[in-house]
Amino acid sequence: MNTPHLTELGQQLRVDSVRAAAAAGSGHPTSSMSAADLMAVLLARQLRYDFERPSHPGNDGFVLSKGHASPLLYAAYKAAGAIDDSELLTFRTLGSRLEGHPTPRRLPWVETATGSLGQGLPVGVGIALSGKRLDRVGYRVWVLCGDSELAEGSVWEAAEHAAYENLDNLTVIVDVNRLGQRGPTRHGHDLDAYARRFQAFGWHTVEVDGHDVEDIERAYGEAVSTAGQPTVVLARTLKGKGVASVQDREGLHGKPLPDADEAIEELGGVRDLRVEIQQPPAARMLHAVRAGHLDLPRWETGDEVATRDAYGQALAALGSSRADVVALDGEVSDSTRAEFFAKEHPERFFECYIAEQQLVAAAVGLATRGWVPFASSFAAFLTRAHDFVRMAAVSGTGINLVGSHAGVSIGEDGPSQMGVEDLAMFRAVHGSTVLYPCDAPQTAALVATMAGLDGIRYLRTSRGAMPVLYGPDEEFPVGGSKVLRRSTDDRLTVVAAGVTVHEALKAADALAADGIAVRVVDLYSVKPVDRETLREAAEQTGCLLTVEDHHPEGGIGDAVLDAFLDGRPTPRLVRLAVRDMPGSATPAEQLHAGGIDAESIVASVKLLVENAVVR
Amino acid sequence: MNTPHLTELGQQLRVDSVRAAAAAGSGHPTSSMSAADLMAVLLARQLRYDFERPSHPGNDGFVLSKGHASPLLYAAYKAAGAIDDSELLTFRTLGSRLEGHPTPRRLPWVETATGSLGQGLPVGVGIALSGKRLDRVGYRVWVLCGDSELAEGSVWEAAEHAAYENLDNLTVIVDVNRLGQRGPTRHGHDLDAYARRFQAFGWHTVEVDGHDVEDIERAYGEAVSTAGQPTVVLARTLKGKGVASVQDREGLHGKPLPDADEAIEELGGVRDLRVEIQQPPAARMLHAVRAGHLDLPRWETGDEVATRDAYGQALAALGSSRADVVALDGEVSDSTRAEFFAKEHPERFFECYIAEQQLVAAAVGLATRGWVPFASSFAAFLTRAHDFVRMAAVSGTGINLVGSHAGVSIGEDGPSQMGVEDLAMFRAVHGSTVLYPCDAPQTAALVATMAGLDGIRYLRTSRGAMPVLYGPDEEFPVGGSKVLRRSTDDRLTVVAAGVTVHEALKAADALAADGIAVRVVDLYSVKPVDRETLREAAEQTGCLLTVEDHHPEGGIGDAVLDAFLDGRPTPRLVRLAVRDMPGSATPAEQLHAGGIDAESIVASVKLLVENAVVR
Repeated sequence: MNTPHLTELGQQLRVDSVRAAAAAGSGHPTSSMSAADLMAVLLARQLRYDFERPSHPGNDGFVLSKGHASPLLYAAYKAAGAIDDSELLTFRTLGSRLEGHPTPRRLPWVETATGSLGQGLPVGVGIALSGKRLDRVGYRVWVLCGDSELAEGSVWEAAEHAAYENLDNLTVIVDVNRLGQRGPTRHGHDLDAYARRFQAFGWHTVEVDGHDVEDIERAYGEAVSTAGQPTVVLARTLKGKGVASVQDREGLHGKPLPDADEAIEELGGVRDLRVEIQQPPAARMLHAVRAGHLDLPRWETGDEVATRDAYGQALAALGSSRADVVALDGEVSDSTRAEFFAKEHPERFFECYIAEQQLVAAAVGLATRGWVPFASSFAAFLTRAHDFVRMAAVSGTGINLVGSHAGVSIGEDGPSQMGVEDLAMFRAVHGSTVLYPCDAPQTAALVATMAGLDGIRYLRTSRGAMPVLYGPDEEFPVGGSKVLRRSTDDRLTVVAAGVTVHEALKAADALAADGIAVRVVDLYSVKPVDRETLREAAEQTGCLLTVEDHHPEGGIGDAVLDAFLDGRPTPRLVRLAVRDMPGSATPAEQLHAGGIDAESIVASVKLLVENAVVR
Repeated sequence: MNTPHLTELGQQLRVDSVRAAAAAGSGHPTSSMSAADLMAVLLARQLRYDFERPSHPGNDGFVLSKGHASPLLYAAYKAAGAIDDSELLTFRTLGSRLEGHPTPRRLPWVETATGSLGQGLPVGVGIALSGKRLDRVGYRVWVLCGDSELAEGSVWEAAEHAAYENLDNLTVIVDVNRLGQRGPTRHGHDLDAYARRFQAFGWHTVEVDGHDVEDIERAYGEAVSTAGQPTVVLARTLKGKGVASVQDREGLHGKPLPDADEAIEELGGVRDLRVEIQQPPAARMLHAVRAGHLDLPRWETGDEVATRDAYGQALAALGSSRADVVALDGEVSDSTRAEFFAKEHPERFFECYIAEQQLVAAAVGLATRGWVPFASSFAAFLTRAHDFVRMAAVSGTGINLVGSHAGVSIGEDGPSQMGVEDLAMFRAVHGSTVLYPCDAPQTAALVATMAGLDGIRYLRTSRGAMPVLYGPDEEFPVGGSKVLRRSTDDRLTVVAAGVTVHEALKAADALAADGIAVRVVDLYSVKPVDRETLREAAEQTGCLLTVEDHHPEGGIGDAVLDAFLDGRPTPRLVRLAVRDMPGSATPAEQLHAGGIDAESIVASVKLLVENAVVR
């Protein structure tokens, strides 16, 4: 393809973007038109991709960070022969693969779902890390960003990460069309403003006219030949380029063109150019090699072990057994105990420093290449990455997230360090699994299990040591629970998880001494919950008392309800949870002040018995 | 105070930090010792603060972004005479005001809770914005950061915001002690690496030896005299400075010194220097002036209005009535309709561009100076600021957050733009209020009401137009609900909010035509819920069917349970919510695919009636 052909291809991508949005009656054609020439040159000159084999390990990665420019992406797929023209025109309709913002859930060529701005580059860094440090098969990663989204801090977490890791296999193309949704960006067409920032973060920068295909071609070549650092191509473009009535004008974001037919004519009419995409080099997936036997650590009943320690040990063991397991941490691996993995498998450990959005994004990127990432930080700080977790679920990506220092039971550090809303956050994620172990063997077993699940898997660990309750060969299926105390005289059922399991057991013993029998359920699988056991407990005891080291909303108290939502009779429900804002205090004082220790459970049960609320 | 005195003051702050942590048996003395000289010079030479009047409008702002260095802050309070030595030694004990990480909930001189790194500067920018654009009383804002936390993207959102707004009343002091929690930072003692980054973002930078008080003094002077841009003072320091056994060593983060007595001796022993803090200039609070009558917009029953439009109009009216109301938006004000406020009150509108963490942090900063901020973005994108919302609740700050485009009912844009976990997120925030109006008058009334509440107030608005149900003088107390259909024959109660209220009404009419009476409750106050009405509905109809445009977890279905958590009999519960991952489709198709439209409600009710689940 020569220069005039490239220009023509750019025009075709514009025309098809206009057509798709016109057919849909919505969408973002003007944001597609600004980047059309950038995309045309990438397709024809640089991208190496086998559309027949989207999981080819040698495929380049392409991430459309400005996901609203989806018409451009789909127009490119058409030009590459991956979809046909009639499918292009199904854009944004019910059942179409061509959604308003692209997702890999529906389209196999999409690396990661975009549409929440500032996420494409962070995930792209994860893919490039995979290529540079693990796969080593020579693929490149291309990320097309908008200029508006450079205001997101996550972009700068990613910029820092990429430069520090010398990701010269990563190129970011910024479509600087100067207009955001609501009006001009902070820096307009000042490419230098962006160049200064990227250079300061350690990047190579190239500034180009984003509508001059030869200029673009040179810039991409420079990016590819730059060693030791990532490159950003800053392209001056015009929103709505090529159609005078919309070009470079405000107030036209996210709207089909006023007169599509006229615009298509102005753009030179419909074309049907096909572009031959370069094939990727032969490559094999390194992580397809599995090691085999899993030798999980073992503990004796009664040992005092923190579940975060068990996590670190189990993950290190899992890493020895499975060559596809990788770990990431946000500069707290000595606390989360991810350091145990880091010490045994340094080549598969990724230090992400204090940048939780990048931590989760890098995990998502690694997962796109088949790795099984475990990313850890304090449970409280994973809230920082909520939007990335949400988008990972939109992608359908499988990642493991581990939040340590859950709950008020961490003690003196106070509320800023306490994860007391993490269960609510992770339960509400589509298709998530939420696990909360109370002892070391349970933790280890769940770590091994979660690695094989789909979607977002969340493990909640605790800071303090807790006695080992279970034997080394006990099984803990996801969606299960353990009944730790049971009799035919149970007056109610205490449902606990994690640290409160131990409080519940102490309470049950104290109550038994007073002649009050209670059932105790260890609800280690918070989502999905063990409906059968909860229903049986409801039928047999009539009342569920939930006790959780978490705010009252969205945690275990709400989770148990899932067993009763089909209209069946609901048991009486009583909830003990952290209702006040904690201060500093010892772990025991915190549990007591929070009303979730054994004493509080005993008092609550006695009150229910005295008031004849329970039978 | 001359130079030797300043050095002595620095040593006293070190000694007191060591003593506080030793008394507590935990805490971060080494992180306090690195910044002691920086703090000493600030206290003695620059800070203007009336400790007797923490709400003095002329007080400088000081934010300890590295909140774990709280021993240093409390040692400074002691040196300033705000607390005595015996209180210093209550550090981290139950009931003490001196928490592991400082919070304004307990200490009046703390501007904002810190302890989640990377938040101090963003909030400091909000305070400085208040000083520069609103209060105009000449106070300065000082933020003391760690070097590790500069990896957080939120720092760069703030850096961008501060430079763009020319906040020359803001100085950031970075304690570059080269050691994070787990080991060295990315850039170690390379001050130039940080300087390049801040300069690229438009800041004035000064590099100093952070243990040379004269050097520090000059740097602060340079910061104060720099016009038109914020200044960062990058200070080379040593963690654990002054005690050879810990100085500049790894593995000693967050631990009391091994031998406190020996360390105190090495530091020259206990001192009792008092520093006279400069008084702030006389100033008055501009926003103490209120305008008076509130003239909310009015609509006719049956008009079709989107609640986001009603929000924008009501906020503009509120801004005319109350001079203390300010608005912020994340570059989507044309969608959230915050632009209505921006047009009428441009001097009180803050464009934060696409940086949701900074959006919320700026709101928190403005609130510390008595302003009543309303910050808006898409509901989905407020997840980006989850950790900032969490920390605002730890602070006890009062802010209003508004999430538009809630739910699948937005239509074609697809899941990346749909807020379907926002209710779960905001309900689980400590002390929050969660409101979800279904029509324009309800929205307007709630906007006016929420401005006067405490804590985090969340309003969820919808994209599409919906018919006006209520008259202009209807009242909507927080914690209330509206019963829209009721009879003595009601077979069950449909509990809805927002867009599903309209579906529930349609369903009730269709069911009535088939001889099935159902009650319909508009649960506009999702937290707190109207316990009385829900309990009455439970007693009279026996079953609650909740219908929500949200994931099944943590939303309205869980919220209704709050009326039954004291062990009373629980009604049967059935939940309609968005269980599958949506694609692109029209709003009506989305509601149907999600199983939350009128047809789905009718089908569910009929199934319950046929199976005799309801009476």
